[in-house]
Amino acid sequence: MEYRLLNAVNGIDDLKRLDKKDLPGLCEEIRAYMVETVAQNGGHLASSLGAVELIVAIHYVFDSPKDKIVFDVGHQAYAHKILTGRREAFRTLRREGGISGFPKREESEHDAFNTGHASTAISAALGFARAMRLKGEDGRAVALVGDGALTGGLSYEAMDDAGSEKIPLVIVLNDNEMSISRNVGGISVNFAAMRTGKLYNAFKRGLVRVLDMSKTGKWLGRHMERFKNRMKRFLLPNLPFEMLGFTYIGPIDGHDVGKLIYYLERVKELGRPVILHALTQKGKGYSFAAENPERFHGIAPFSVETGEVRPQNSITCSQVFGETLCELAEKDSRIVAITAAMPSGTGLSAFAERFPDRFFDVGIAEEHAVTMAAAFAAAGLRPVVAVYSSFLQRGFDELLHDVCLQNLPVVIGLDRAGLVGEDGETHQGIYDPAYLWIAPNLAVYSPATIEEQRAMLKMALQRREPAVVRYPRGSLASAPFPEPIVFGKWLLLRPMRKTVILATGSLLPLAESIADETDTGLVHMRFLRPMDEEMLSLFRKQGTRLLVLEESIAALAPQIALACNPCPVRSLAIPNIPVAQGTVAQQRERFGFNREMIKAILAELEEL
Amino acid sequence: MEYRLLNAVNGIDDLKRLDKKDLPGLCEEIRAYMVETVAQNGGHLASSLGAVELIVAIHYVFDSPKDKIVFDVGHQAYAHKILTGRREAFRTLRREGGISGFPKREESEHDAFNTGHASTAISAALGFARAMRLKGEDGRAVALVGDGALTGGLSYEAMDDAGSEKIPLVIVLNDNEMSISRNVGGISVNFAAMRTGKLYNAFKRGLVRVLDMSKTGKWLGRHMERFKNRMKRFLLPNLPFEMLGFTYIGPIDGHDVGKLIYYLERVKELGRPVILHALTQKGKGYSFAAENPERFHGIAPFSVETGEVRPQNSITCSQVFGETLCELAEKDSRIVAITAAMPSGTGLSAFAERFPDRFFDVGIAEEHAVTMAAAFAAAGLRPVVAVYSSFLQRGFDELLHDVCLQNLPVVIGLDRAGLVGEDGETHQGIYDPAYLWIAPNLAVYSPATIEEQRAMLKMALQRREPAVVRYPRGSLASAPFPEPIVFGKWLLLRPMRKTVILATGSLLPLAESIADETDTGLVHMRFLRPMDEEMLSLFRKQGTRLLVLEESIAALAPQIALACNPCPVRSLAIPNIPVAQGTVAQQRERFGFNREMIKAILAELEEL
Repeated sequence: MEYRLLNAVNGIDDLKRLDKKDLPGLCEEIRAYMVETVAQNGGHLASSLGAVELIVAIHYVFDSPKDKIVFDVGHQAYAHKILTGRREAFRTLRREGGISGFPKREESEHDAFNTGHASTAISAALGFARAMRLKGEDGRAVALVGDGALTGGLSYEAMDDAGSEKIPLVIVLNDNEMSISRNVGGISVNFAAMRTGKLYNAFKRGLVRVLDMSKTGKWLGRHMERFKNRMKRFLLPNLPFEMLGFTYIGPIDGHDVGKLIYYLERVKELGRPVILHALTQKGKGYSFAAENPERFHGIAPFSVETGEVRPQNSITCSQVFGETLCELAEKDSRIVAITAAMPSGTGLSAFAERFPDRFFDVGIAEEHAVTMAAAFAAAGLRPVVAVYSSFLQRGFDELLHDVCLQNLPVVIGLDRAGLVGEDGETHQGIYDPAYLWIAPNLAVYSPATIEEQRAMLKMALQRREPAVVRYPRGSLASAPFPEPIVFGKWLLLRPMRKTVILATGSLLPLAESIADETDTGLVHMRFLRPMDEEMLSLFRKQGTRLLVLEESIAALAPQIALACNPCPVRSLAIPNIPVAQGTVAQQRERFGFNREMIKAILAELEEL
Repeated sequence: MEYRLLNAVNGIDDLKRLDKKDLPGLCEEIRAYMVETVAQNGGHLASSLGAVELIVAIHYVFDSPKDKIVFDVGHQAYAHKILTGRREAFRTLRREGGISGFPKREESEHDAFNTGHASTAISAALGFARAMRLKGEDGRAVALVGDGALTGGLSYEAMDDAGSEKIPLVIVLNDNEMSISRNVGGISVNFAAMRTGKLYNAFKRGLVRVLDMSKTGKWLGRHMERFKNRMKRFLLPNLPFEMLGFTYIGPIDGHDVGKLIYYLERVKELGRPVILHALTQKGKGYSFAAENPERFHGIAPFSVETGEVRPQNSITCSQVFGETLCELAEKDSRIVAITAAMPSGTGLSAFAERFPDRFFDVGIAEEHAVTMAAAFAAAGLRPVVAVYSSFLQRGFDELLHDVCLQNLPVVIGLDRAGLVGEDGETHQGIYDPAYLWIAPNLAVYSPATIEEQRAMLKMALQRREPAVVRYPRGSLASAPFPEPIVFGKWLLLRPMRKTVILATGSLLPLAESIADETDTGLVHMRFLRPMDEEMLSLFRKQGTRLLVLEESIAALAPQIALACNPCPVRSLAIPNIPVAQGTVAQQRERFGFNREMIKAILAELEEL
C-alpha cells in the first residue's frame, strides 16, 4: 500500500492541518500500516484496529501534550504512536530497543501516563484534571477506556470520585463488545445493538423490571405505553453514568470520524465530567481480525494474506493447565475454575465448555476473583483461579487477607511467570516469587517439566492449603521425572559437590548443561515455599557453596543466604529495575543468564 | 444493668425462642453490655451500637450456620458474637487469647468468613451462594455491608458479577452515614434523610439532571409535574442497585427490629440477588457515641459515665505527620494530600481544613488513591498518600505498576507500621517492609524519633522519587538526632564491635539499652531501601557478626544476609504466621522481642 496521506503526517500538527474529508482515508492507511507491522512483529491487533478513528478524532480535537490523553490498558494505542512522531519508529514495535506496545512517558511527551494493566485510566485522568485545575492550567484530561476495563473496581472508584465534582474530564468509552450495524447513532439507536455488555444488560433488566412490574410501572404501563418506551429508550444508556455524576453522550458510531470530531468538539467545552460512548468493532478493516478478534487480540507474527500464524509445535503451559484441570474436574465435582476475563489466555476455554456451571469469568476483576475463591474454599469447594503473574498483583491483599490469613485451600494457576518478552515492563512475571513469599500458609510449586506441572496441580488440589502453581509463558520441557514429587522437597539432579547450583522452571535446562560441563551439583527447587529445610541444613553443615538462579527479582537467594548462613551464596536474578521489552532470550541475555556469566560465578565460588 | 433477657440467650436457638415483642428489650440489653465491655477493653463501639437490631433480626430470620452470614469489615459484629454462644467470652474482647474484634472462623461456626479490610463481604457471600447451589444445599448467603464499604471497587466487582444471574443472595445495606428521623420507612420516605452518601447524591444529581434538563425531561416537566415527582421518588433509591441486577427494598428503619424481620422474611424467599437498605444511626443508644460517632469509631477504654478516654501524654506519629505536612504545604503549593476515608485516623484533619482544595478523600478506595497520586506526580504536583500499612496492601499493584515502574515522586505516609495490637491478624503492619522491597525505584524511610519523622517527610518531598515514610501506631521517642539524615545512609549509634545489632523504629530504645549492657555495636537502619551499601561492605570486609531486629516478617535480614555473605547473620523478626490480638507489648513478648532472647542470640553470635 502507498501511504499517501500517512507519509505526510510526521506529528499531530500535520494531522490537524489535514482536511476532515481526508481523515477516513488516513484511517485506512493507518490500519494497513498497523496490519503490515504487526504481521512482522506480533502485537495487539484487534483492539488497535478498532480504535483508529477514535484516536484520530481525539488528536484532531484535543491538543496533546497540553491536553492529557490516557489510554486504558494501552494496547489499543498504536494509532496514537503512529500519529505522534513515531511513524517510522513504529516498525520496531515490541522489539528490543524499539517502540513499546504500550504508552511510555519515556518515549514521547504525548504518552501522558504509562499503562499495561486495566482500569487505571479514569483514575489517572482525574488526577491530571485536578492537577491542571490546581495549577490554573486550562488543559483537558481525556481517558480512552474499553468496556472491559469498566468491569474493574478501580474504574468504578475513580468514576465515583470524579462524578462528585464539576471538573473537565472526558471519558471516551470504546465499546467494542458487539459489532454495530450501520444505522447506529444518536437517538435513533438500535437497542438490539445497544446491549453493550453485562453492566448495561443488568441495568436494562433492572429498569425494565422497575418499569414493568412495580405499581407505578404498571400504572404507567397501562396508561402510557408510548411514553414508557420513550422513557426507557431515553434513560437506558445514560443512567449508569449519569448516576455517577457524569454527563452521558451516545452511543455514537465509533468508526465515523466526522461524527466523533463533532461530538468531541462539544464535549471539550463542557467543563464537567462527561462520557462519550462510542461503539466500535474489534479488528475493523482487516477481515481475519474482524472475524476472529479473540485470536487477533495479542498475536504472534502472521501472514497478512492468510491471517495464519506459524503453527506451534509444543504444547503451552496454559494448555497443559487447562487439560489437566479438566481431567481432575471430571473426577472431583468440587473443583471450580475462575478467570478474570482471560478464559482463552489462561487455557480455560475447554473447561468453560465442559463445566459451564463450575466456571466463572468475573470480568477484569482479580480482586473479586480471589476473594470469591476464598469463600468457595470455605464452603468446601476446590477453587482454582487461573491468572497471569503480573495481574495477580491486583489481588495481592485478597490473597493475603482472604485466602492465606484464613488458610483456605485456594489453588492459583499462575501463568506467564518469569520473563514475558515483548509486552515489557508492566507484564513481567518477575515479582511473584517475592510477593508470594509474604502471605502466611502459602505453598508455591515450581514445575520444570510438563509432567511436573500436571502432577503439581494434582497435588495442590489434593492437599488442603493455599497454593500457587507457577509456570512460564510458552512451554516447559517434557521429561518423565525421575523421582515422585514430595511436598516441600527439592530434587537433587546432579550429585552434591563443593558447589551446587539451585535453579527451577525454565532455567533448569541451561543449569543442567552447565552443571554437567563443570561437574557442579544441581538442585531443582521444586517448591519456592516451603523451602527444603533438610537440604538447607545439609548445605549448612557441609558449608556448600551455592549459586541460586532465579528468573525473577531475587526472592529465594536472600532467604537461602539467611537460612544457610554462613555458607557462601551467590545470586543471579533479575535486577529490581523496570524490565523493558525484547524477546525472552534477549532479556535473559541482558541480565547475564548465559554460560559465560554463570560459569564465571561458579569459578569465583570455587576459588573462595 | 440487669441482663434479664440477654442472660437467657446462650445461643441463637434461645434467640429464636424469644417472642418478637421482647426483641427491642434484648437489643437494649445488648447495647448496654457492649458499652460496658468496650469501656473496659476498647473497641469499635459506634458501628456496633448501630447494627444491633440488624444483627438480631438477621439471626431471628436466617439459620446460621446453614445460612452464611458475612460481615463486611467486621468491626460491627459484636452483637453477633454476643448472640452466638460468646456472651460471657465477650468480656475478653480484643484481649490476648480472648474474643477477636472481628469475625473469626476459628472462633465459631457462625463466623462464616474472616474479615477486617473493607468491601469483601459481597464477593464472599456470592461465593457461598454459588457454592451452595452447586452442592444442592438450600442455605442463603447474607452480606451485612456498610455504606462506606460500597465505595470500594471490590464491592462493585462483586455486585456486577452477582447481578448477572438469578441466585439467592441477600445484601443488607447498613446505611449509617446520616442519622434518620423517626418517620422514615417504606414508601413514605423523607428524601432529605435519604441522601445516603456520595453514590446516591451523585446518582440523584444525575437523574434530576436527566429529568430536568433534557428534551424529554423538559417535556415531561412541562406536562407532568406530579408524575415526574412520583417517578423521581420511586426510582431514586432503587436504580443504582436495580441497574446491577439486584432487587431493591427500602429504605427502612434499621432500628425497627419488627420491621426488619418482616422484610427479611420476605427477602429470604426471593431466590435472587436482593438488597435491603436499612438506615441506622452510629452510636445508637449511647449518647456520647451517638453525638460523636467518629471519636467512638475505634476507641480506647473510656468512662461509661463521662464518655472520656484517659488523656494521652505523647504526640502520636499520625499527629506528627499531619502537622509536618501542613507546615510543608504552607511553603509548597504543589503538595496535595490523599486519604482513603481516614482523614482523622491518619492525622490529616487539620490539612483538610487548611487546604480544602488540595485535600482528597476518595472513599475506601486505596487503589484509586495511589493511581490518582501517580497522575498528580506526573502532572508536577507533590502528592502525599496517608494510609495504614495493612490497607496499602490493597494498592500494591497500583504502587508497583503506576507509581514505581514510572518512577513518579509519590510520597506515602505509612501509618500503623509494625505490630498494631488489639485489632489482630488483618490489621498488622508487618508485611510492608517485605512488599515495599519489591517495587523498583522505591525509597523507604524508617524514623526512630519524632524529629526524624519530620525530617524524613521533608526529605522525601524534596527528592524526586517514589518514597514511603513508615511509622508505628502510637508514638515514637523524642530526641534530637545527633547526625543529619543522609539519603540511603544508616546511623552508627554505638561504635562498631565484633557483633553489631541492626534495628530501627520503635525497636531502637530496647536495642540501645541492650547494646549498652553488652557492649555491642548498634546501627539504626534509617532507610529500609536503599540499604547502606558502604556499611554493608564494611561489615563484609570485617566479617562482622550481625543481629537484625525487625518488627515485621523478616525483610531486611535475608537481604543483609545475602549482601554481607558470608558474615554470620541472625534474624529476630515476626514469624510468617497470622498474628493474633493482644497488646503490642504482649505481641512483642510472644515473638521474643525481649532482653533475654536478644542477649541469648548475641551470646550465640559471640561464640561462633
